[in-house]
Amino acid sequence: MNSITELQQLIEGKIGELNLGVYPPELYDPAHYVLNMGGKRMRPLLMVLTTEMCNGNIAHALEPAIGFELFHNFTLMHDDIMDKAPLRRGKPTVHEKWNMPTAILAGDALFVKSVQFVRKCENNQDKIMDVFLRNALLVCEGQQLDMDFESGMDVSIHDYLDMISRKTAALPGACMQAGALAAGADDETAMLLYETGKNIGIAFQLKDDLLDAYGDSHKFGKQQGGDILANKKTFLFLKSIELLSAPDADQLKSIFRLPSAGTAKVQQVIKLFDKAGVKHETELLMQEYYSKALDCLRQTGIDPGQTKFIEKLFAQLMQRET
Amino acid sequence: MNSITELQQLIEGKIGELNLGVYPPELYDPAHYVLNMGGKRMRPLLMVLTTEMCNGNIAHALEPAIGFELFHNFTLMHDDIMDKAPLRRGKPTVHEKWNMPTAILAGDALFVKSVQFVRKCENNQDKIMDVFLRNALLVCEGQQLDMDFESGMDVSIHDYLDMISRKTAALPGACMQAGALAAGADDETAMLLYETGKNIGIAFQLKDDLLDAYGDSHKFGKQQGGDILANKKTFLFLKSIELLSAPDADQLKSIFRLPSAGTAKVQQVIKLFDKAGVKHETELLMQEYYSKALDCLRQTGIDPGQTKFIEKLFAQLMQRET
Repeated sequence: MNSITELQQLIEGKIGELNLGVYPPELYDPAHYVLNMGGKRMRPLLMVLTTEMCNGNIAHALEPAIGFELFHNFTLMHDDIMDKAPLRRGKPTVHEKWNMPTAILAGDALFVKSVQFVRKCENNQDKIMDVFLRNALLVCEGQQLDMDFESGMDVSIHDYLDMISRKTAALPGACMQAGALAAGADDETAMLLYETGKNIGIAFQLKDDLLDAYGDSHKFGKQQGGDILANKKTFLFLKSIELLSAPDADQLKSIFRLPSAGTAKVQQVIKLFDKAGVKHETELLMQEYYSKALDCLRQTGIDPGQTKFIEKLFAQLMQRET
Repeated sequence: MNSITELQQLIEGKIGELNLGVYPPELYDPAHYVLNMGGKRMRPLLMVLTTEMCNGNIAHALEPAIGFELFHNFTLMHDDIMDKAPLRRGKPTVHEKWNMPTAILAGDALFVKSVQFVRKCENNQDKIMDVFLRNALLVCEGQQLDMDFESGMDVSIHDYLDMISRKTAALPGACMQAGALAAGADDETAMLLYETGKNIGIAFQLKDDLLDAYGDSHKFGKQQGGDILANKKTFLFLKSIELLSAPDADQLKSIFRLPSAGTAKVQQVIKLFDKAGVKHETELLMQEYYSKALDCLRQTGIDPGQTKFIEKLFAQLMQRET
């Protein structure tokens, strides 16, 4: 079995040598630009680790895993347009560096390429494609819900968890399910691994929400309080409303009705988050989903000697500071 | 064999009863809205007509054919954003009726659905998916080139024909190739039918360019001279430059360097087109591609009794006024 670092290097090498196309350059350069910005490569890593864990040959999983990463990068390109984000990982976003039409179209082309790569699988190609497409649609639904929730105030914690289970968690789930299928695992095992990935994805998003408010913005590489400035109804916000006294909750809500107002707004909101003690509450919920993920993993009956690397990756994702 | 009208009704009925999804409505309503705007349904019609022509069962072709139509509608949604088009078929475009982020995302979701539908084929599923994805990428490339050419002056007739062979003609080609494959035709026949569809697609686009300048805008349903206002380097423009005297050609070029200037610009340009006699030249070239399409069709050796409906459709496309 390969270690996480070895697989990471394998994936990074593969991405580094990708040639998605050359003409017209305005179509393919932005795709290579975004792919070479770096990133955790969590999705392809989950896929190949799962294939190894299920005694499969990673040669069968590597190209579809790259396909999942291409799909993820396509969503980043389009999400950045929708969110009007000027920077990603400290670099200008595609619509800033080129322009909006190019960012739309280069994203579309990257999407086509992602489907082509996901198809490059000898085992269970059909089932893997089903999994990929079903979850690709969930990602779109999640992004639409995320946008809907920015402007609406009538969002419940249940709504929020449903939204992130689509937007963020569907793809990690799909990667683990596809990784299992690429190894020739049975449907039941693959489904349990979907649940594993989905739960770790939800925990991952809760960690992301925490880092947005409480992370070291230099390490995290994003502006502190970006979610707050965008009036995102994260778990931190929704749970604070529940926990705070009525006047404090009303204050928090009225701050979130205002358009962006810079660092003063962020500080004000974090003060209310602190008052609600929501940091701890979020950590508890994150732990809960992390535990659920491990439970699902154990239910597969896969030998613990085989699951150690993926468990190590999960732990890293939970403890990360970036 | 079913007539064109019967197949058109079958396709229209199928599109009318499509339920692509319901939640969140902002994601799926725009897709249904665009699909129900109408249209010629040329792509799915080409596919099912080809399947019938190749003695296949249209039951095997109908859902993938709908997939091609979904893909086409996805490109319309994104193209309208890029072109800042306020209207399509006399109705507000999706980014106008909803907003730009929703138009991007609803387009993305429609793309995922199109892949799901194209997969719904019992015969040659793998080959059909190859054809679909390869040509989907060509469509993206063509759209990027089209945008590049709007701002650049250094465009040759060869460049233009290459661009429309991707943007417009790749999909009719793919639909005929896929239709043949769905009927279980051999690769060579399918490839000849790709060339048939591609050539008819180029002729179709030349007809479109003609209608833009010389069509009855009430019948055509688009603003007269839309291409001229957008400084599109169509065949009419490029061939006029070639045919006109140096001073007239320079005048035409300098008009195309200006931003949009309303109907005065359109009238000025059409006067120069007339002086060049480019309407007739375009009709000749259109005829040339139409003949090429029929040649490719004959090379398949398919019995003329079988090709009559598709030939009738081609003739309709060439004679259309809308």
